[in-house]
Formats: sequence, C-alpha cells, structure tokens
Amino acid sequence: MTTSNANAPGSTDRTRVRRLPERAVSDVAALHRVLDAALIAHVAVSDADGQPYVIPVAFARRGDEVVFHGSTGSRLFRSLADGQPTCLTVTLLDGLVLARSAFESSMNYRSAMVVGVAHRLSGDDELDALRTITEHLLPGRWQDCRQPNAKERAATMTLAMSLDECSVKIRTGGPEDVPEDVTDPVYAHVWAGTVPLSESFGMPQASDESLPETPVPAYVSAWTRT
Amino acid sequence: MTTSNANAPGSTDRTRVRRLPERAVSDVAALHRVLDAALIAHVAVSDADGQPYVIPVAFARRGDEVVFHGSTGSRLFRSLADGQPTCLTVTLLDGLVLARSAFESSMNYRSAMVVGVAHRLSGDDELDALRTITEHLLPGRWQDCRQPNAKERAATMTLAMSLDECSVKIRTGGPEDVPEDVTDPVYAHVWAGTVPLSESFGMPQASDESLPETPVPAYVSAWTRT
Repeated sequence: MTTSNANAPGSTDRTRVRRLPERAVSDVAALHRVLDAALIAHVAVSDADGQPYVIPVAFARRGDEVVFHGSTGSRLFRSLADGQPTCLTVTLLDGLVLARSAFESSMNYRSAMVVGVAHRLSGDDELDALRTITEHLLPGRWQDCRQPNAKERAATMTLAMSLDECSVKIRTGGPEDVPEDVTDPVYAHVWAGTVPLSESFGMPQASDESLPETPVPAYVSAWTRT
Repeated sequence: MTTSNANAPGSTDRTRVRRLPERAVSDVAALHRVLDAALIAHVAVSDADGQPYVIPVAFARRGDEVVFHGSTGSRLFRSLADGQPTCLTVTLLDGLVLARSAFESSMNYRSAMVVGVAHRLSGDDELDALRTITEHLLPGRWQDCRQPNAKERAATMTLAMSLDECSVKIRTGGPEDVPEDVTDPVYAHVWAGTVPLSESFGMPQASDESLPETPVPAYVSAWTRT
C-alpha cells in the first residue's frame, strides 16, 4: 500500500484528514492530478432549514481553484453564490481490495475534498471558466462547438472556489491483512488481492440529426483519460 | 432522450427535482436499480460551525433503506448518529453528450439522492447491514472471508437511512440541439452525438501473501456490474 504521512497543501484544522491519516498526501501535484482526472464532482449545499443536499456537477480545476456551473434558476446554486459554506469532493475508484477479513477489505481510490465559500464569476472571467469546464471534459471541443450566447449566459451561474482548504486521500496497493489471518489454518486459504476498476469510453455515436459527411473529430476519437 | 415527467416515490417538497424535472423518474424499481448499480455514495455531514463535508462511503441498499459504515472514531460520523440531517447521493456516469452548442452539451447519468436522518444500527441488525454492504460490493464474499470480530465491530459505526425522501434523475439518449444550430451553415457541420462511458473490472491480482494454490474464486472472476 502506498501511503504518505502528511496532509495536503492548504490543509487546515478543518480539512486535515483525521481518520487514516496515512492515506493523506501532501503533494500539490497529486491534488491537481486527482481533480484533473475526475469528470464530475459532488457539491454540498443546504436549504434554509439546514438540510444538506449533495449534487453532482460538471467542474474543472482552473489554476488554484475549482469552477463549476449550474442554473441561475436553482435556489440551491443561488445560496452558494450568496456565500453559504460548501464542499466539493471528487472520488475516483481504482479497485476493490479484498482482504481475508471483511474489516480490512477496502477500495483503492483517489479522492480530493475542497471546502470553503464559492463566489460567482461574471464577464470574460465566467466565459473563461465555461471554456475550462468544456475543455476539461473534452479537450478540443470549445473551439469546435457554438459558444454560449447572451441568453444562455444569463441562464448559467458559474461559481469558483479556491483550493486554499483541501485534502487529498489516495489508497493504492494490496490488502493489509492482520498477521493472524495470513497464518490461520482456514483464512490463509481465502483468496486475497485486488480487482482493478477503470472507466473507459466506448465508440462515439453520432446523433440522429448529424450530417453523414461529418467525421468523428480526432479530439473525440483519440480522447482517453487516466 | 428518454425522460419521465414525474418525481420519484417518496419525493417530497424538499426532494422534488426543481431543475429539469423531465429528467426525474417515478419508478421505485428505477431508484433501486440506480442504488444497486453504484459502488460508492457521497454523504454530507456538517461540523459544529455549519461547514459541510462531502465524504465518499461504501454503502448498500437494504430493502427500503440505505446502509453505510464508518469509524466510531470519526467525529463526523458520530454527528450523523446523533441525528444531524444528511444526504446520500450516488451518481453513475454513462457518457458525454456533445451537442453543437456548449450550452446544450450534457452528460448521460443516473443519480439518486436520499435525504433525511440516519440512525445507528447495533447487534444482529448491524451485522446484517455489514453483510449487505460486503455482498453489494462483491456477491459471494461474505461467506468466504473472515467476518468481523468483537474488536472490529466496536471500531465500526453502521448507519441506516430510510428511502422515504428521495429523488432519482436519469438522462439517456443523444443531444437535444436547438433547431437553429442543426440548420446553421457552420454549426450543422459540427459533430454531435454521445460518447458512452462505462466502468469495467480488470484482471484480479493476488496479494503478495497469497498461497499459490489458492485459485481466484468464481465469484471474483465472474463478477461484473452494469
């Protein structure tokens, strides 16, 4: 199991990983890699009664912040723009970890958590963030597609949150069985190991309205993410 | 695009999908299928200052509730057991949806959100929930591995939350371009369609401490999830 015994850059008392701190990493490049590898994030937002909701969002890292967007008609998104504290988490699952005991069984994963307050972007800064989100999902797409017009811009709320407070946890490697299980006459014979898990893209499928002469662009057919 | 115009069973004013309600589905079987297909969930929990955190957890559906576990040493998990309102969300990404415009571009996904208050399980009920989580991740594993002993049980906090308040959103199908883009002299020629995305398991890898004569069990090698 690969571990690190420090916390991420930008970790504070609030974000310091209290459980299993050996799974926290202290490398800003590792934080960026986890954020850059994820297609979606989950964001927390609470209503007026304090009921939290966890919402999947498209997002991207832009330098030392994360940007994500929603609808200007969303009550929950408006409360984020009003300064409600939030948290954005991404998790990439890399495999099942099967120990001889249920208790030591786990998953390999990469997870990053960013906490703080988001602020709403506007003007060219917002347009750049929208470009960054599109390019994060599929590099090359922004220049090819129609960029948002004024009406679409008015319907979109784009938020940014600094990476100042964050934590990263990464687990890799095999199970960590307790020694008694490894030598136990019964449990020594239980298969232990990892089952890797990965996301992959299938064949692009043109829409019904596509022109038959339009080829699949190279930035689509060649695109993979690790 | 496949849609439904109603909300999920158990939807309330709090969980009724306000944005894009045509993506909500009203079928309890669909809710169960989404929960059963996901390997992890993201759970919201707030600290004493109202700062929310979004935490990835192993979980399972057990009948008409979800169960998940953490460490008894986790301050945040203890606050959930004390009755703090929470939200558990699962999201499965099924593909990129590339419209001719950035604004209409989207993703195909299945997402379920459960809100409410969790309660801590104990005794045989807790053991059954732990079995359900292990079997959810890998059917067949529970009987094969060593089940938790008293010390491990004491270190584990297992929580359950009812599906009484929930929502499900599912998007399938191709892009929904605005008619002007489909007939536009420039944008008609932009490739539009979907790029499917799926999770897959790789070859099981035995741990270093494995006995060479122990075969990969059939429940591992044959297991897939859709």
